[in-house]
Amino acid sequence: MTLSRRLVAEALGTAFLLAVVVGSGIMGERLAGGSVGLALLANTLATGAGLLALILTFGSVSGAHFNPVVSLVAAWQGQLRGAELSGYVLVQVLGALAGVAAAHLMFGEPLFSASLHARSGLAQCWSEGVATFGLLAVILSCSRHRPGITPFAVAAYITAAYWFTSSTSFANPAVTLARALSDTFAGIRPQDVPGFILSQLLGAAAAAGLFRWLLSEPQPPRS
Amino acid sequence: MTLSRRLVAEALGTAFLLAVVVGSGIMGERLAGGSVGLALLANTLATGAGLLALILTFGSVSGAHFNPVVSLVAAWQGQLRGAELSGYVLVQVLGALAGVAAAHLMFGEPLFSASLHARSGLAQCWSEGVATFGLLAVILSCSRHRPGITPFAVAAYITAAYWFTSSTSFANPAVTLARALSDTFAGIRPQDVPGFILSQLLGAAAAAGLFRWLLSEPQPPRS
Amino acid sequence: MTLSRRLVAEALGTAFLLAVVVGSGIMGERLAGGSVGLALLANTLATGAGLLALILTFGSVSGAHFNPVVSLVAAWQGQLRGAELSGYVLVQVLGALAGVAAAHLMFGEPLFSASLHARSGLAQCWSEGVATFGLLAVILSCSRHRPGITPFAVAAYITAAYWFTSSTSFANPAVTLARALSDTFAGIRPQDVPGFILSQLLGAAAAAGLFRWLLSEPQPPRS
Amino acid sequence: MTLSRRLVAEALGTAFLLAVVVGSGIMGERLAGGSVGLALLANTLATGAGLLALILTFGSVSGAHFNPVVSLVAAWQGQLRGAELSGYVLVQVLGALAGVAAAHLMFGEPLFSASLHARSGLAQCWSEGVATFGLLAVILSCSRHRPGITPFAVAAYITAAYWFTSSTSFANPAVTLARALSDTFAGIRPQDVPGFILSQLLGAAAAAGLFRWLLSEPQPPRS
Repeated sequence: MTLSRRLVAEALGTAFLLAVVVGSGIMGERLAGGSVGLALLANTLATGAGLLALILTFGSVSGAHFNPVVSLVAAWQGQLRGAELSGYVLVQVLGALAGVAAAHLMFGEPLFSASLHARSGLAQCWSEGVATFGLLAVILSCSRHRPGITPFAVAAYITAAYWFTSSTSFANPAVTLARALSDTFAGIRPQDVPGFILSQLLGAAAAAGLFRWLLSEPQPPRS
Repeated sequence: MTLSRRLVAEALGTAFLLAVVVGSGIMGERLAGGSVGLALLANTLATGAGLLALILTFGSVSGAHFNPVVSLVAAWQGQLRGAELSGYVLVQVLGALAGVAAAHLMFGEPLFSASLHARSGLAQCWSEGVATFGLLAVILSCSRHRPGITPFAVAAYITAAYWFTSSTSFANPAVTLARALSDTFAGIRPQDVPGFILSQLLGAAAAAGLFRWLLSEPQPPRS
Repeated sequence: MTLSRRLVAEALGTAFLLAVVVGSGIMGERLAGGSVGLALLANTLATGAGLLALILTFGSVSGAHFNPVVSLVAAWQGQLRGAELSGYVLVQVLGALAGVAAAHLMFGEPLFSASLHARSGLAQCWSEGVATFGLLAVILSCSRHRPGITPFAVAAYITAAYWFTSSTSFANPAVTLARALSDTFAGIRPQDVPGFILSQLLGAAAAAGLFRWLLSEPQPPRS
Repeated sequence: MTLSRRLVAEALGTAFLLAVVVGSGIMGERLAGGSVGLALLANTLATGAGLLALILTFGSVSGAHFNPVVSLVAAWQGQLRGAELSGYVLVQVLGALAGVAAAHLMFGEPLFSASLHARSGLAQCWSEGVATFGLLAVILSCSRHRPGITPFAVAAYITAAYWFTSSTSFANPAVTLARALSDTFAGIRPQDVPGFILSQLLGAAAAAGLFRWLLSEPQPPRS
């Protein structure tokens, strides 16, 4: 595929991902009658299912990263060149913003509004580090050993991670940035963004390092 | 397969799809004790799972479109001739109506009754456009690159779309028409049908155009 | 596989199926705090997931029918001989009873107790007919065209059918008989059993007849 | 793979499994507003999805046992030598403890705290025996006949088992030990651990014995 097609696919896929996350958060909160648990259950179901559909749809065009740390690790592994990496990250962020606006339009909210949802503290940063470490572990190992199954593994992982982390597992800098502009269920205060992104980068780096060793086939000894 | 077999499969599959959507909506509302969120969660689970089963069952006979805009795009791509397209759309609408009646019979409701459920406004029409664009994106890309996975991708997409759009994602003119005749959880007022169908057609057309380019392999330059 | 191994697999699989259906019904009702919708949601999730696991586990040994009407249709298609059919049906019923007792033991209930749960009337019988027709449609078509996918299609279908029918879709005479001996969430009054089983037989017969035609490849005309 | 890589994979996978089980239990209870049913539904969804992701991720490195009775049966079948078995069990227990601590850190709980959650009595021990028997049945049969599907079957089985047993199906001695050190939703009192582990061993032994016969191909008679 040409780079322009791949960039359009990344932008479109990331936009839909954010529309799913933010839109289903709004819908969940509106219909849950005050039960945050029910709202997050709906948000989780929609995100897991939506992510599966989007990776299956765009994976064969652009790889369906939808996530700057995934592209970063791919570049570190030599699968993306520097210019491609810049393009990927740029359209992921722009796509994410467009997806938030699209969701807000669907629910009659203003196009963008800074979130007031506090997500801070060491526990949440540790959550983001663990969540991103796990996400990269899933991607690196499955795409090496059984690539056709990766979309299912990633969607299942994120479904779990919405509940097993106290941060509900953003695990994605583009998603984090865009959700700062949504004063809804899925939002995050702009001042909490840097801590989340830093934790995500550290978690991804740890996974990339560990799995480079873990997945390497040892050389047989020379005779 | 002969055309008669394919038309019976399309009719039967669309009938079951509507029975699932309308029936699980009634059941969900009856058992949810006033929680719209819980009712929609049940409705979503049933629709996603039912759609997966139905596409796996009828896909190898008729293609399992169950949806006039899917058949329309297939015809535009040259996969259906004009007479086949007319047949497909006709039996989809008739099947959808039969499915609504079958569901009503299962729950002791009158066979048909005009819905009073208002679904109008720009936000809902925008939702239908986005939802149908995404549905066609999933179908066009998966059926090109990995057809065996399409049933899973479509079911997952609709599961997400019930929650990330404010319209709960009809994304199907035959479904929209038939749900106008069900004064239950899943219904839509007859006067709101044209706006929904127009939005669905526009969303499908946009997807068909964009993905014709996105999925085309560029020709190598002539030497 | 020898017949004795196949019969043990059918008995064991049907026993686990009933343990899942009845046990998760009890658990769901106990934890739902009076919300029938929440109880049925849990019951549905457990049944769909459990059925998938059981069919994947026992399918390659016995075919994983777990259901007399499925075995009956298999015999009608020439896949089971008369003596095998009798054996299958017998161990399915015995296994189902053992599974109910196993579930009751897990929850401190008496081994067996006649259900007081009324499930009668034309709407519920029509539901059982439709549900069983659909189940056979799924099995007959998937096992012809894409057998490896059948476990997923059947589990997804039953997940949907718990919600789109007013009877919650028993669709299985052995299951129906055994659930008459459980005075819990999943029970059915003994006097309502014959109507359910008759409806299931009619639905299965209709599907077997229709799909024999629908799935037959037409012969090319002789020249 | 070298043994060191396999042991790291087992430790990491079991740690993540416990983080998922304990973390989603805490999150579920905090958000459920007093509804134990809703909390367990979230806990179930996260555990089933997380288990699928983890088995797909680590299966090709270590086999993804994450469970001493699974390793024990593998050793009994000749797939693990004695020293490997000891290593597997040791890192499973250590990984499980690390996972509990990681989850507690994510939610601001003390690193470890003895559980006060009573889980005792014959009904719960019978539940653990049945649950572990079923888990081994799924693993032994699927890994023999259709290994690529085993992760899906195991995840689906555990999803069901959270609801069809009165113990919520620990079915894993390392998980049982580690959950004794979590005074949260998923905890178990230390004094209840021996009964659970004994029941799990008995259930696993029964399954290993029965399935050795059930899955053996009978020899054709000598002429």
